Amino acid sequence: VTHMFAPGNNELSVQEGEILTVTNQNVGGGWVEARNSRGNVGLVFDNSQYSYFMNKINFINAHPIFSHRFPGFSKTPNPEVYLLTKSVAKGNDKLPIYAGEVGPVWLYPQIQLDCVVADPKKGSKMYGLKSYIEYQITPNTTNRPVNHRYKHFDWLYERLVEKFACALPIPCLPDKQVTGRFEEEFIKMRMERLQGWMSRMCRHPVISNSEVLQLFLNYRDEKEWKLGKRKAEKDEFVGVKIFSTIDPELPELDPGQVEQKYEMYSQFTRSMDNSVKELLAVGHLHWKRCTGPLQKEYRQIGKAFQNLSSVFNTSAYPTLSATGKTYEEIAELVAGQPKKDLHFLMETNNEYKGLLGCFPDTIAVHKAAIDKVKEADHLVTMNKISQQDKHIMEKNLSTMSYALQAEMNHFHSNRIYDYNRLMQFYLEEQVKFYETIAEKLKKALGQYTTM
Amino acid sequence: VTHMFAPGNNELSVQEGEILTVTNQNVGGGWVEARNSRGNVGLVFDNSQYSYFMNKINFINAHPIFSHRFPGFSKTPNPEVYLLTKSVAKGNDKLPIYAGEVGPVWLYPQIQLDCVVADPKKGSKMYGLKSYIEYQITPNTTNRPVNHRYKHFDWLYERLVEKFACALPIPCLPDKQVTGRFEEEFIKMRMERLQGWMSRMCRHPVISNSEVLQLFLNYRDEKEWKLGKRKAEKDEFVGVKIFSTIDPELPELDPGQVEQKYEMYSQFTRSMDNSVKELLAVGHLHWKRCTGPLQKEYRQIGKAFQNLSSVFNTSAYPTLSATGKTYEEIAELVAGQPKKDLHFLMETNNEYKGLLGCFPDTIAVHKAAIDKVKEADHLVTMNKISQQDKHIMEKNLSTMSYALQAEMNHFHSNRIYDYNRLMQFYLEEQVKFYETIAEKLKKALGQYTTM
Repeated sequence: VTHMFAPGNNELSVQEGEILTVTNQNVGGGWVEARNSRGNVGLVFDNSQYSYFMNKINFINAHPIFSHRFPGFSKTPNPEVYLLTKSVAKGNDKLPIYAGEVGPVWLYPQIQLDCVVADPKKGSKMYGLKSYIEYQITPNTTNRPVNHRYKHFDWLYERLVEKFACALPIPCLPDKQVTGRFEEEFIKMRMERLQGWMSRMCRHPVISNSEVLQLFLNYRDEKEWKLGKRKAEKDEFVGVKIFSTIDPELPELDPGQVEQKYEMYSQFTRSMDNSVKELLAVGHLHWKRCTGPLQKEYRQIGKAFQNLSSVFNTSAYPTLSATGKTYEEIAELVAGQPKKDLHFLMETNNEYKGLLGCFPDTIAVHKAAIDKVKEADHLVTMNKISQQDKHIMEKNLSTMSYALQAEMNHFHSNRIYDYNRLMQFYLEEQVKFYETIAEKLKKALGQYTTM
Repeated sequence: VTHMFAPGNNELSVQEGEILTVTNQNVGGGWVEARNSRGNVGLVFDNSQYSYFMNKINFINAHPIFSHRFPGFSKTPNPEVYLLTKSVAKGNDKLPIYAGEVGPVWLYPQIQLDCVVADPKKGSKMYGLKSYIEYQITPNTTNRPVNHRYKHFDWLYERLVEKFACALPIPCLPDKQVTGRFEEEFIKMRMERLQGWMSRMCRHPVISNSEVLQLFLNYRDEKEWKLGKRKAEKDEFVGVKIFSTIDPELPELDPGQVEQKYEMYSQFTRSMDNSVKELLAVGHLHWKRCTGPLQKEYRQIGKAFQNLSSVFNTSAYPTLSATGKTYEEIAELVAGQPKKDLHFLMETNNEYKGLLGCFPDTIAVHKAAIDKVKEADHLVTMNKISQQDKHIMEKNLSTMSYALQAEMNHFHSNRIYDYNRLMQFYLEEQVKFYETIAEKLKKALGQYTTM
């Protein structure tokens, strides 16, 4: 079940099969104003694919929430429009897929794109009435910084979803928090997360090469930015049409092979999603335990030793007092540790939770295509499509499968790299943590004399 | 408020000033049967001191409980009978006090007495109808083992309380548990605690030298044991009379000096009692946390890593699984640690809680004596006592103070030794614990390859 939320929460609840009349196409942000059969007017999400299958839309009743959510797909975009497409994009628009060591892979650039998100600055508009935070983004290609506000990231995100989300998981941006937007801690955290999001986009061989990301990172002045924005918003190769730009230089797969791959990836992403959520849940619990009851308890142990030592002070017992202070220090180490190691573990797993949350939608498009091709034989007998059409559909399904395989192989290589780095970092910090405690206790022990 | 409990809970509630008629002196265990003015018959605690001041007894209503409790004093034994005593015990009965480095000290034996409590064996009586546990006690002096049941320890405890509790803290025996008496864990724990109790009694210079302890450790046959028991139960130098056997070879203290010492010890024992209880409370909490939520949490962390690793297994990721197993091992280390170190900390502090619980009674006898001597001037003017009597009272108060000082110095030297040993042991185990965890994590870390 996917939820969708219109700006201002004046979204329209619609049922499958309902007929809507568009009353205003210029709402923006992917939304249009529409009226339903009962005369209620509200916003519904617009997508070139949706307008085509408007009679089948099946929006879910939205709950009013304030955080930014991935608009996603309220219903699987229908891949039929692509499956019957004969022409393939040419030249710069072509997205080739090669046979790599691990299987089908995207074309990776010679130098991996990356960028640094830094230097958040408070800016204002309308004579100081509206204030915002502007971040400086410096790509490794030009080494020339550009400035962007959160809403620009959001615009980029929406373009990437429109263009690629049928084939690639486009993870959500970090939450748009309304209150306390200018607190230092919050700005630092958001910047860290925008950095993570941008790096992931830059590391993606398809996304990194896209005109919209290049515009975001390289625009030279306001004019270039405005023109580029307008162009990106008019891009026709969005939704399932993205598949018509994909060109696998590999032998065609039969539908059986395609379904097998689909089953495997579907199973894998679901399992990993569960495991990541489990790890996040226990990590959250552990964080709360370390900064709450455990810190309190070690402080109490420290205090108890010190109180006993102060009773003993009549006959001088400074060693016990030092032991007490050591346990108070351990309390602070225990409470401070999650920020040092668990934080990174949580952030990385949160990123993966975001990525994995996109796969069900991406995979659903794929499944819909498999089902369409399964129907093809029947449609041929019914004379609804020609034998030729069926072959085109199978070839296009093979292309979709290669796109999914290339994307999964990209995901796997990132995953192996990310989790390897994460676990090494986490364990290194954990070793340091326990060694520091052991060292402190050893020092406390050293103050006692053997009797 | 001190509670007293008669066997079978048929104790008699009595008020201050009430006159009781003793109806049966042979109830045993320090109790006599008596009738009050309203004709109610029940048990009251008998003590040579109490019968003397029977018109002042002030028993507290007892609540029915089943565990063994220190009978103690329901009212402070009146030291008057001793304060006016002129004669001092001679020869073997004499308890000398010397000027030691730390102040007045008991006469310590050349070789410290100790014993080993071991080899608990199940025995039975009445054709197997009654079963019990017999422990083997081997003193270091004879190296010849004797056998005793818990009830014999209890008899010894009662004799020691009768004889010494006005001057020395006699800690309670470990709880007499009724259910599950023969469970292995319980027997082991009780033996450990009986060992602690016996060692403390053996280490005491006055108690170790007493006829009753010597009988307990050295009796050769049933006949010697029975005869010795009868003799001990008839001992006249019990209660406050113990002070008349004390012979400090030190200059007499004036009542002002006595009161100053009293204030100091009173304050110290109360403070230490509070600190020990605080440490026990936080230790108990920490124990529960380690064997409860913390173990569970580390297990969950371990499981979460392993589950994620099993998802990754399609592309082989045994290192993460090993990390998960490491956290499961850490869970067991965390849960098992309290038994290794906190146990000893809790046991030692529980012993001290027991000892400190005796001091209020011991100190109250002392305070009553101070108050009596303060009254002496008034009594002299009223011609109730002679100037000579007053001097005897002051000299005897000085003797009581030396006894308290010698006992406190003994307590302090034990305390320093015990807590030094305890803290060293505790910290050594804690260092090992954290080092073991760090070592395990290092090993888990070593399985990852740098990318």
